[in-house]
Amino acid sequence: MAKQNMTGDKSAVGKRNSGKRYYTYRKVNRRSALLPIQEKESVRVAFLGGMNEIGKNMTVYEYKDDMFILDCGIAFPGDELPGVDLVIPDFTYIEKNADKIRGLIITHGHEDHIGGIPYLLKKVNIPIYATKLTIGLIKGKLAEHGLLQSTKLVEINPRDNITLGSFNIELIHVNHSIPDAVGLAIRCPAGILIHTGDFKIDTTPVDGDMIDLTRFAEYGKKGVLALFQDSTNAERPGYTMSEKTVGESFENLFRKAGRRRIVVATFASNIHRVQQIIDVARRLKRKVAVVGRSLENLVQVGEELGYLNVPENILINIDNIKNYADENLVIITTGSQGEPMSALTKIAFGEHRKVVASPNDYVIISATPIPGNEKMVANVVNELMKHGIEVIYEKMYEVHVSGHACQEELKLMMGVIKPKFFIPVHGEQKHLRKHAQLAQAMGYGNSNIYVGSIGDRIEISEDSVKYVDSVPSGEVYVDGIGVGDVGDIVLNDRKRLSQDGLIVIVATIDSYSGEIQSGPDVVSRGFVYVRENEELMKCARNLATKIIEDTYDSRYKDWNSVKSRLRDEISRLMYEKTKRSPMILPVLMEI
Amino acid sequence: MAKQNMTGDKSAVGKRNSGKRYYTYRKVNRRSALLPIQEKESVRVAFLGGMNEIGKNMTVYEYKDDMFILDCGIAFPGDELPGVDLVIPDFTYIEKNADKIRGLIITHGHEDHIGGIPYLLKKVNIPIYATKLTIGLIKGKLAEHGLLQSTKLVEINPRDNITLGSFNIELIHVNHSIPDAVGLAIRCPAGILIHTGDFKIDTTPVDGDMIDLTRFAEYGKKGVLALFQDSTNAERPGYTMSEKTVGESFENLFRKAGRRRIVVATFASNIHRVQQIIDVARRLKRKVAVVGRSLENLVQVGEELGYLNVPENILINIDNIKNYADENLVIITTGSQGEPMSALTKIAFGEHRKVVASPNDYVIISATPIPGNEKMVANVVNELMKHGIEVIYEKMYEVHVSGHACQEELKLMMGVIKPKFFIPVHGEQKHLRKHAQLAQAMGYGNSNIYVGSIGDRIEISEDSVKYVDSVPSGEVYVDGIGVGDVGDIVLNDRKRLSQDGLIVIVATIDSYSGEIQSGPDVVSRGFVYVRENEELMKCARNLATKIIEDTYDSRYKDWNSVKSRLRDEISRLMYEKTKRSPMILPVLMEI
Repeated sequence: MAKQNMTGDKSAVGKRNSGKRYYTYRKVNRRSALLPIQEKESVRVAFLGGMNEIGKNMTVYEYKDDMFILDCGIAFPGDELPGVDLVIPDFTYIEKNADKIRGLIITHGHEDHIGGIPYLLKKVNIPIYATKLTIGLIKGKLAEHGLLQSTKLVEINPRDNITLGSFNIELIHVNHSIPDAVGLAIRCPAGILIHTGDFKIDTTPVDGDMIDLTRFAEYGKKGVLALFQDSTNAERPGYTMSEKTVGESFENLFRKAGRRRIVVATFASNIHRVQQIIDVARRLKRKVAVVGRSLENLVQVGEELGYLNVPENILINIDNIKNYADENLVIITTGSQGEPMSALTKIAFGEHRKVVASPNDYVIISATPIPGNEKMVANVVNELMKHGIEVIYEKMYEVHVSGHACQEELKLMMGVIKPKFFIPVHGEQKHLRKHAQLAQAMGYGNSNIYVGSIGDRIEISEDSVKYVDSVPSGEVYVDGIGVGDVGDIVLNDRKRLSQDGLIVIVATIDSYSGEIQSGPDVVSRGFVYVRENEELMKCARNLATKIIEDTYDSRYKDWNSVKSRLRDEISRLMYEKTKRSPMILPVLMEI
Repeated sequence: MAKQNMTGDKSAVGKRNSGKRYYTYRKVNRRSALLPIQEKESVRVAFLGGMNEIGKNMTVYEYKDDMFILDCGIAFPGDELPGVDLVIPDFTYIEKNADKIRGLIITHGHEDHIGGIPYLLKKVNIPIYATKLTIGLIKGKLAEHGLLQSTKLVEINPRDNITLGSFNIELIHVNHSIPDAVGLAIRCPAGILIHTGDFKIDTTPVDGDMIDLTRFAEYGKKGVLALFQDSTNAERPGYTMSEKTVGESFENLFRKAGRRRIVVATFASNIHRVQQIIDVARRLKRKVAVVGRSLENLVQVGEELGYLNVPENILINIDNIKNYADENLVIITTGSQGEPMSALTKIAFGEHRKVVASPNDYVIISATPIPGNEKMVANVVNELMKHGIEVIYEKMYEVHVSGHACQEELKLMMGVIKPKFFIPVHGEQKHLRKHAQLAQAMGYGNSNIYVGSIGDRIEISEDSVKYVDSVPSGEVYVDGIGVGDVGDIVLNDRKRLSQDGLIVIVATIDSYSGEIQSGPDVVSRGFVYVRENEELMKCARNLATKIIEDTYDSRYKDWNSVKSRLRDEISRLMYEKTKRSPMILPVLMEI
């Protein structure tokens, strides 16, 4: 608590009310060389995603009338969002403040950091700043959405600076499961903020460059107001292993494969992993073929931009694998999460057009199932084994390492950066809480830690971090080309339909006499197999006839009460007879 | 391979063809005291469940015209079976052989071993043999289905024998996560078969009785033809910890809880776990309240039958918790798998009528998520933590141990029983394969191991285990009171409806003139929010009008071609405009 009261004006600071816009009255000279002498306000940070959730990371930094955005990711919908393709952040707050947004900075090229960009750019056109590979991956995305021409993309190297209004931002190299990842040092009159981005500490990374701890330490020495740190692995003790250990496992396993064909499934974005597979394949004189669209893209972009070092004559087209003996082949494939439409799943279930599984295959699944995917992965493993294939999966060997820092790395970074305030980011509540406990173990008091939530806007000043207000935030669903047109009503209908299906009751009524002219017809889908339940359908038809005849009054034409009775009574009938609750959809036509 | 040719008639044996019914011609005197001298056939075993899948364990043992069933369980449906309540085995094979079935033996009272019994009894009325607690749990189930009066239930103690036709079966005590679990020694003229049932080796079990290794060893000494062993944990190295270790963890954690209220979530069937919670609560002078219907049942049955030792004045009704200070309370609750309708989930989301979460709670989730449940458990943990509650979950402490044997225990049992043939059961392909590898490591050759699949009927003779044929088997879905009336068509409709909803197109047509009399009306559910998509609905209506007018020919009344065009063209329109594929349901009415 020593740093905060350097100027001795503790009382003035103490007086301000939380939630109120705050102007400092301190105009005294400061000893700190970093902060220019000027009217100093607090810096504000709004979390539009990645807090209390995994995915769609997006943060807004604000100082007076200047704002910039950090990352703009998507989340993948779970079973609770049937039919939804993607989830993007709510951009309302950005649209409202469009005139203040000076730019978008991206830490690295994973979907949970770049996937939302096209949707954001359709709302506000702002320049994007990122490192080379990240820009390369964003370009592909913008091209798909026809946004490439209209967008300003600025390539930045680590240690370079970006000035966005009152902010001056330096990108700092970090290790992660994709090359060219960076953290940020954000300088503004309120002080220095560090955002680690997704990171780990890899002392022997595949691309040769260890995380730039020196630079983080230099900022630590200068004095850091707040640290925003990646909570993903806060529950895991110890250190994350180096990516190089995976290479060593590959070497051992590839040798064990003997004369079998090797198939390795991995995340489509992990260039380092692909590099290591290629390196080992080269040493063992095997050719490498790649299957799965996203992996093929990655290999192309990676090679073009120089992130993937592919020796000549090693890559072959998947169409040509038949020209090589099994013992001379490695196939790299997507599907490490058991995704139903992925190449590995298709291979396992005999549905891949180009790769046919055989007992002479040796499959390595080089990934850990993301929570929720365990069953899908197990299905693929089981299916491969039914072909008599040996499968290396999960923790059997070190064929996967995480891209995120574990507890010891997190504490090491905290110790080097020595921030005044600590803010865990990128995680569910359980990750953020565990991360906060780590900070406590490092000596941070509760008032110096902020465990936030999506939508929180916080204010960081020299002596406090606190909640200001909530900004619009949440989940916007992308389904097909529709953005935001699938809401709770539609989703609830989908869930209901998936449980017990529906029954449509249609009748044509003479509006003059009130007599039924045709029908009622009873049509069902997803409820029971109708041919075996004709009696039940007849019951429903008779009941519907009775209800319409009883209720319909041509003078009042009270369609609603007829429909409502049809819904209630047919529903009750079905529940009695089947203990199921299909949706009842009455359609009455008048002639 | 020594034992099989004791009689020296190797050649006769060698000649028979696989798949053919086999009568042995050997009538020579045998030295073996165990096997009576008679015409000796092979024993056959049909797997109706639990092979290549987790759950719905059910096996049929056959010798000549005598059959008995071992276990009759259910499986819980995954996301791929929307709306399905339970999955039971296909009983076709049992119905076909009803006159040969001499009885049903149950190894223990878990749902995946007893859940299918009422559905089986509705097809064939056969006597049921099991130990005391298992019978108690089956009784509850039969009472619910009104089958208690009509069913013969026979209580058997471990080491007691049951004679069912040519079979003489001894029940042997094993350790598991429910008391009174048994394995089987099955004697028939073909030899001795051992089925372990679900088991673990607990040298310090809560109920005091270690698995009856002695008896298994005695059979091993006599000579066992085949061992059917529980594969559930075959992937896990080492030993399963003793249930007692959980008690020790509870003691430590309960002390750490200090003055907070303790909430422990556990599996509703784990009497030992509940016993340990009660024991520690008593020592720490806390009262115990139980929430969740299945747990309340368990405590009642457990107490009645003497499997739960509850000191006086320790159990209180959940309605009375308000009369006690937090520090004097332990609440045992269901919901350790994050099940949406369970007590713990309701408490976390503030929906429980009797228990309100507070930061002064200390929650222990005494279970490991079953694969597929990880996300649900994490949701509950996150939600509890948002209340500021400390939650102990997953591998943070030893608050859970498995009920199944790990690799070292499996090998130990194999070593003691020394079967000639080894058949892994109860597991997915990956478990069975791993289990087979363990047997290989114990010296078994491939021809002495049988990795089977659901539906396989195998034949075990002195010199071989082999596939005979496939019997009807699979999944029968229970939805409401319907058994088997939900099939692939209904499920596919449900899945389709859950993805993009549906559009119903209704029109009334004059059958004489072919003119549209009313409509077409376009109604959608689960597709888009209609109020914001009126233009799209208008398009669909216009297109439908055009199609009906173009296609309908009152002379031929070819409704099908009208409907088919409506489906195709409206579907195409919707995909063009939205990139979604709702189900299109045309209903045409004639007057």
